[in-house]
Amino acid sequence: MLHDVAEQICVIEDTRRIYEDYKSGLTSIEETDMPQYKAPLRDMHFVLHELLNAEEHYAKLPAFQETVSRELIDQYLEAGADFCENELSPLNQIGDSEGCKWNDGVVTTPTGFKAAYDKYVELGFPSLSVPEEHGGQGLPGSLATAISEMVGSANWAWGSDLGIIRSKAEPQADGSYAISGEKIFISAGEHDMADNIVHIVLARLPGAPKGTKGISLFIVPKFNVNADGSIADRNAVRCGSIEHKMGIHASESSFQGALAYAKDRLAMRSLSGPKAPEKEADPIIVHPAVRNMLMTQKAFAEGGRALVYFLSQYADIVEQGVTEEDRKFADNILSLLTPIAKAFLTETGSESAKHGVQVFGGHGFISEHGMEQIVRDTRISCLYEGTTEIQALDLLGRKVLGTQGAMLKDFTKIIHKFAEANKDNADLKEFVEPLAALNKEWGDLTMQIGMKAMQNPDEVGAAAVDYLYFSGYVTLAFLWARMALVAQQKLAEGSTETGFYNAKIKTARFYFKKILPRVRSHVDVIAGGLDPLMSLDAEDFAF
Amino acid sequence: MLHDVAEQICVIEDTRRIYEDYKSGLTSIEETDMPQYKAPLRDMHFVLHELLNAEEHYAKLPAFQETVSRELIDQYLEAGADFCENELSPLNQIGDSEGCKWNDGVVTTPTGFKAAYDKYVELGFPSLSVPEEHGGQGLPGSLATAISEMVGSANWAWGSDLGIIRSKAEPQADGSYAISGEKIFISAGEHDMADNIVHIVLARLPGAPKGTKGISLFIVPKFNVNADGSIADRNAVRCGSIEHKMGIHASESSFQGALAYAKDRLAMRSLSGPKAPEKEADPIIVHPAVRNMLMTQKAFAEGGRALVYFLSQYADIVEQGVTEEDRKFADNILSLLTPIAKAFLTETGSESAKHGVQVFGGHGFISEHGMEQIVRDTRISCLYEGTTEIQALDLLGRKVLGTQGAMLKDFTKIIHKFAEANKDNADLKEFVEPLAALNKEWGDLTMQIGMKAMQNPDEVGAAAVDYLYFSGYVTLAFLWARMALVAQQKLAEGSTETGFYNAKIKTARFYFKKILPRVRSHVDVIAGGLDPLMSLDAEDFAF
Repeated sequence: MLHDVAEQICVIEDTRRIYEDYKSGLTSIEETDMPQYKAPLRDMHFVLHELLNAEEHYAKLPAFQETVSRELIDQYLEAGADFCENELSPLNQIGDSEGCKWNDGVVTTPTGFKAAYDKYVELGFPSLSVPEEHGGQGLPGSLATAISEMVGSANWAWGSDLGIIRSKAEPQADGSYAISGEKIFISAGEHDMADNIVHIVLARLPGAPKGTKGISLFIVPKFNVNADGSIADRNAVRCGSIEHKMGIHASESSFQGALAYAKDRLAMRSLSGPKAPEKEADPIIVHPAVRNMLMTQKAFAEGGRALVYFLSQYADIVEQGVTEEDRKFADNILSLLTPIAKAFLTETGSESAKHGVQVFGGHGFISEHGMEQIVRDTRISCLYEGTTEIQALDLLGRKVLGTQGAMLKDFTKIIHKFAEANKDNADLKEFVEPLAALNKEWGDLTMQIGMKAMQNPDEVGAAAVDYLYFSGYVTLAFLWARMALVAQQKLAEGSTETGFYNAKIKTARFYFKKILPRVRSHVDVIAGGLDPLMSLDAEDFAF
Repeated sequence: MLHDVAEQICVIEDTRRIYEDYKSGLTSIEETDMPQYKAPLRDMHFVLHELLNAEEHYAKLPAFQETVSRELIDQYLEAGADFCENELSPLNQIGDSEGCKWNDGVVTTPTGFKAAYDKYVELGFPSLSVPEEHGGQGLPGSLATAISEMVGSANWAWGSDLGIIRSKAEPQADGSYAISGEKIFISAGEHDMADNIVHIVLARLPGAPKGTKGISLFIVPKFNVNADGSIADRNAVRCGSIEHKMGIHASESSFQGALAYAKDRLAMRSLSGPKAPEKEADPIIVHPAVRNMLMTQKAFAEGGRALVYFLSQYADIVEQGVTEEDRKFADNILSLLTPIAKAFLTETGSESAKHGVQVFGGHGFISEHGMEQIVRDTRISCLYEGTTEIQALDLLGRKVLGTQGAMLKDFTKIIHKFAEANKDNADLKEFVEPLAALNKEWGDLTMQIGMKAMQNPDEVGAAAVDYLYFSGYVTLAFLWARMALVAQQKLAEGSTETGFYNAKIKTARFYFKKILPRVRSHVDVIAGGLDPLMSLDAEDFAF
């Protein structure tokens, strides 16, 4: 018992020493202690150019084929990285510790936010993919996605989202509508950074039917606007209070923070002998359990990026595709994968953030390290996007079973083609074989649930979350197999970036060996069906 | 897209209505809104008396056989429940919102804490299992465990834990030692509730060897004590600051709060047709996904309680067992299962708390509901107990492989005997068969890791966390199978508590069908071995 306690002291002692060193101002420690955002430009180039051939993709879309070159893409990425690393990231802690100030309905943002926002507008980022006729840049949504990934990771509190409300709209004599009611949970619903703020408000007209059908969309400006576009009087919209919500940040940053820390922090000796014999203990990155957490974070972060960019290209095609058939096909893939991207990536992001805290050990929960903000923030993102359960029902109930499997087939065919095209590549076998098997199982599993659901529709609800996880792991396996193929090809072509490309292959291998086996439990749980969930009467839950 | 958003509005609208109702003071809503602690006395009786035959257990231990009757146990449980429900639980929110106040080294606790502490002392709870010759009650540790479960669930911030320190001890001329250094992370290390506070301090003597061997144990009082026991001058020990830690609470309370909410809150219609046609929507408990979360919380909470009480009886035997053989055997079981109880129950508690937030949906993250406190608190409990990774190494490296499997065999034999004794019970087959198979697999898996570890000791680190999860799920399966047997017997004997006992059987079934399949992924991940974790050079982690 005493020995147990003493053993843990050694771990905490090291943490403490690092903390003390940090306080006395050593820069190397400062770097590990406060996660500072570093834009993953190399990996963004890999995904956009090498995996997804962005230039070819834009060349097929008339709206962009003249204007969007690789040079232009890279210029925007550079500018975005510079802004995020040097302007936004430093504001992160200020935002969290200082917070917004509320005074009689007017909100003042933390120090520095206003200046950064001016720069952000000057760079054209808020309107990157807005059509030129509406004053935007007219650039592809997929490029905006890459910029917004950096913005979101550097400072998740930045930006705004669609407020969700329960309000009434009353038609007025002048043809306008008077909206009454309260919005809740509006991030950036009221601030002092822009001259005006426009709320997108969903409200019911008098006599509108109950439920979703009775909802109309209204534009509610903070300041009314004259016919000539000039700012008129303050509208009656007011910020009632700043909700004391848990903070807002990203989880990729969690990986960056945890990695730097794991390389520096010393604790115990490696089981297979000292790795840093000149120091008192080994850096914790030598421990397999710490490695596992860091590799998991890496596999989810890079796999997630590939999935999001992959989808953003389909979104470009939905908007700008040449033929109706192209647009329809892209819309199917996008519809199918959107609930997966939303819920699965949010859950894996939450898992990554949890690992980040764990790597930081005892000190992770002290606010100064930033890690606990990240955990809180990823949990709230699960709720922002609608709960995982709602996304799962959307996937299995509406997208998959609701189309008699047609949307799913469009996607599994893409995977099937990839597997067929590479089945003779011996070096890729470790990825292609399990991928092909799971791709087939995806169809079988769907059929099995569909049959049960014909007997009782609640079987859909019982299977949905596990089905979403299964689908997410297989989708990410597809992208990791493709990334491994690209890396293999680059190495075969004699690239000198052997470290980068080997890391891709090794991370793909980690994903297939150490993450993908999770599908087995989900398949078994789905097989358990509905009955074990529902047989207990609600009154018998607690005694 | 708009339809998606509108769909989510309906969910949030309901939440909002409940919130508004709450504000206007409806009591039924108030109950669901603020988790108030309700001691699970019926289930505690089930575990102590019906599952673990507490009276028989104490009758075998000379220290308790005369004094501890069923009547006495139940009296203490009643008194504990009353104190926790009516004194401690209401202090919970006050503690979190008001916090402790620090003023120049003296800490004042929140309103009401001092009075509750006096009552706590009067009831004899702090010293329940302390020997009578040291001023305690001399009651069994297993009884203290049940009381402290209630105290911990009602108000986790209550109580104190062993501070962990890095301090030096200098021998003084008068034979005493001067301790210098700082302690960090002492819960309740300084407060105004008792006349004196005694710190258990681990410190190094001058010239002591590095590492754990050089640590000695010292007693450091807040006030020095005269030879006659009276309080003397204030010692130089001081509270440097109150760390801004994330809060402290329990996750069973999370289940209670989520359950009440799920029964009341309305959202959407059941997929298999309206369940409450007279209302605007069905209570969310009809949805399988919500059921799944509640059943998971129930299975972990009740299974966890059974495991902890089960272990506390072995702890009684270690202290008071008649023969050396009894004490040694109990010590083996306790040593083996302690890291499982610590880490596995903490992780499942953390999962339960996450489900609690999810059940509360969009509003879960607003502090007033209490759920977000619970999530933060369970994460910190992962760190309090040493990280899951450290517990996992202790289990697999020291307890299992370090004893050549002897400790594990002691426990798997107990499971084997139970399975053999019940193999002809047709009604128990659904539990006994998979349990027996997994019990055998536990040994095989251990052998497989042991063989690999002979080649490379780091294989232990690579497998440890998954091995801990596997062990935890199997251990809980053993306890759930035993609980199902007891429930079956009670029903066969004609008990009128059919609701309670059927719930036990149905929850056991849920556990076996919907939770236990998770072991499959852990087995597959273990089979993936060490290489996928370690092959990437530390420098190639990020580009």
